[in-house]
Amino acid sequence: MIEFHSFFKNTSDKKEKSLLFKEIKKEKKDRVSAYYELPYSTEALQTTKTFMRVREEVLAKIDTLVIVGIGGSSLGLKAIDSMLSHLSHRRKISLRFLEHTDPILIVQNLEGLNVENTLFIVISKSGTTIETTSLMKYVLCRYNLLSVHKEHLLVITDCDSALANWADENDIYSLTIDPLIGGRFSVLSHVGITPLMLLGYNVEEILKGAREVEEKFFNRELDCLLEKAIYYAKNYRKYPINVLFSYSSAFTHFNAWYVQLWGESLGKINKESKSVGLTPVSLIGSIDQHSFLQLIVQGPNDKSVTFLSVRQFGDESVLIPDMSLSSLESTDFVNGISFKKLLRLQRESTMETLIARGVPTDLIIVDELSEKTAGILIFSYEILTSCIGSLFQINTYDQPGVEFGKQLLRSKLTLP
Amino acid sequence: MIEFHSFFKNTSDKKEKSLLFKEIKKEKKDRVSAYYELPYSTEALQTTKTFMRVREEVLAKIDTLVIVGIGGSSLGLKAIDSMLSHLSHRRKISLRFLEHTDPILIVQNLEGLNVENTLFIVISKSGTTIETTSLMKYVLCRYNLLSVHKEHLLVITDCDSALANWADENDIYSLTIDPLIGGRFSVLSHVGITPLMLLGYNVEEILKGAREVEEKFFNRELDCLLEKAIYYAKNYRKYPINVLFSYSSAFTHFNAWYVQLWGESLGKINKESKSVGLTPVSLIGSIDQHSFLQLIVQGPNDKSVTFLSVRQFGDESVLIPDMSLSSLESTDFVNGISFKKLLRLQRESTMETLIARGVPTDLIIVDELSEKTAGILIFSYEILTSCIGSLFQINTYDQPGVEFGKQLLRSKLTLP
Repeated sequence: MIEFHSFFKNTSDKKEKSLLFKEIKKEKKDRVSAYYELPYSTEALQTTKTFMRVREEVLAKIDTLVIVGIGGSSLGLKAIDSMLSHLSHRRKISLRFLEHTDPILIVQNLEGLNVENTLFIVISKSGTTIETTSLMKYVLCRYNLLSVHKEHLLVITDCDSALANWADENDIYSLTIDPLIGGRFSVLSHVGITPLMLLGYNVEEILKGAREVEEKFFNRELDCLLEKAIYYAKNYRKYPINVLFSYSSAFTHFNAWYVQLWGESLGKINKESKSVGLTPVSLIGSIDQHSFLQLIVQGPNDKSVTFLSVRQFGDESVLIPDMSLSSLESTDFVNGISFKKLLRLQRESTMETLIARGVPTDLIIVDELSEKTAGILIFSYEILTSCIGSLFQINTYDQPGVEFGKQLLRSKLTLP
Repeated sequence: MIEFHSFFKNTSDKKEKSLLFKEIKKEKKDRVSAYYELPYSTEALQTTKTFMRVREEVLAKIDTLVIVGIGGSSLGLKAIDSMLSHLSHRRKISLRFLEHTDPILIVQNLEGLNVENTLFIVISKSGTTIETTSLMKYVLCRYNLLSVHKEHLLVITDCDSALANWADENDIYSLTIDPLIGGRFSVLSHVGITPLMLLGYNVEEILKGAREVEEKFFNRELDCLLEKAIYYAKNYRKYPINVLFSYSSAFTHFNAWYVQLWGESLGKINKESKSVGLTPVSLIGSIDQHSFLQLIVQGPNDKSVTFLSVRQFGDESVLIPDMSLSSLESTDFVNGISFKKLLRLQRESTMETLIARGVPTDLIIVDELSEKTAGILIFSYEILTSCIGSLFQINTYDQPGVEFGKQLLRSKLTLP
């Protein structure tokens, strides 16, 4: 289903691994974050089913889902939907995101939208994210969602948030999440599960994939995650940048999700008042071989690189024609092979180039892009992040660094 | 038109600046790269006009332009088109790119395409880029471009390339570029100018903007570029990462163009056999405040950050409704302002946060998104890159690091 191959020297000993494992086990037990429990929770499934029953009439008509949410409230859903949108059981519902305060995008993203065929889902953990509440107010007004079209609105938020209270007071349907689940670790809660169910995905399989990782990790059958975390944390000064080089366009949004997970979780001031972190870089192959690869091959040796690839995906029948063109005979060596094979060979060649340079390289291969592998990928990246955070001695789950900017914004508008 | 503000301490003295300036002047004079001459060249304009006259009949019918090209052959065009696509004189032509060997994208990008209404432009400097020739063969076959629809094909390549020869031998219309212009510096040659003219843009204004920068720089009226380059090059070990934080979705592809320009130009082994480089990171505000900002604020202080913003852009009339929601009163402070203003204040708040942390920060503001400012932005980033490259003592214009992977790919398919 999924394979992890590492091409750098494993420098962690038994004791280190055991220590880290205990820390993570404790973190889970102490509910430092409740995301560990999500693979086993059926709550999101059950309450979404209820919502679908109650709103059956409205949902039968919808052809558009508008997600009003930013960061952790949108990236995970986007990541999974774009990995799985080829599946034939995905409903033909257009998925749009209102996440940006850029007025151009707001106008574009709502173009041609008919509220009668639309469900708006406002997602905000805190309930007071300024982008989300502003955009919510905008759609509330524009589409009369507080009066005529109340049934076209759903709210997903922390159970005790201001937004939850507002929804209650105004008789808006809301689904709530455990405040102990941080935004960027929330995709397996209502935040992701509800929209994914509405899109027709088999979310039980997603959870099953996540469960498999959880079980294996806590049974010490997935120590490669411990080893990778130890290597990254030990060497973060030497290799402060981590590149996720994914060889399929279907991973574009998974990469963006990883950037947030990695950036916000690990970029912190730790217990010893040191600034730690790993800078995430998202690349897509083969296209970024023509953009960023030169820098990895000859620039400062400050990057670790993870290749992500999928075995069974993409049409084998899209072939490079077996045609020799005069003057261009030097390109004939790829004639007759599939683009899919070319892409795989490009990934292998690039990987071998980096290994030869001594770049700490590893490879994740999934068999296919299915609900189950999506769950596996998401959850193994989440656990990996928790492991590195634990070694960094930070709180992996907060983001205090963005508060100052929020206060500044507020003071710019409220000070006389 | 454009303003450069720098918030880090200028550490370059008169002598350093003068030395660097002389180097760049010499580079231009010696034609180390011929991109310096492009703002003054009317060749691309004239030959494109001729092409448009000769192919008048075909061009009158086209509603789709397919660019077959990767890296420097597509990124600059995408950057400019997405900055300017709001202009009313841009023709309603759909611009598609075939650049990825991912079979899924190939199929998607050609969906519903009618060759009768399409012009294919194959762009490759060397003429033997494996992605480009493979995709070219694919469309040659699929759309009978070598027989029935020869007039729907245009080739842009180096004047002495294998592709130019092939075009000549097969009576395919081709436009050629000076081999002394590298791919990532080529957007003001035929590579960008021809498609941009076909899309209806006023390319003379783009060149005029670039000319303005060229003149100012070589008249020593734009020393801020020298200063910035000296600061970045001097401190590249302390600040190995440069972030371009652009506050408008219209800059998404400009950022991608910058990533290639910076990554491939500056990531090199220099004259003293040292690996140098600056890792480019592309962020879009406000969205990436919820993804990457935490890392800049509290993670390792290893990043310089350039903010890019535009004054007159986006609809002032898209307002946050002046509506107070019970329980959500804490979000009322933005009520009644435009999203555009919110976006500007978010940029200012984020910028002030980083300056307060001591992050080397600068700001580029353009008045509006017009052809002229596009030319200004492109050319000032190109000159900045040349300056840093010169200080790094590297060849800014080659990319030897990607050759090894290309050879590996070939050997995988040709060795017994």
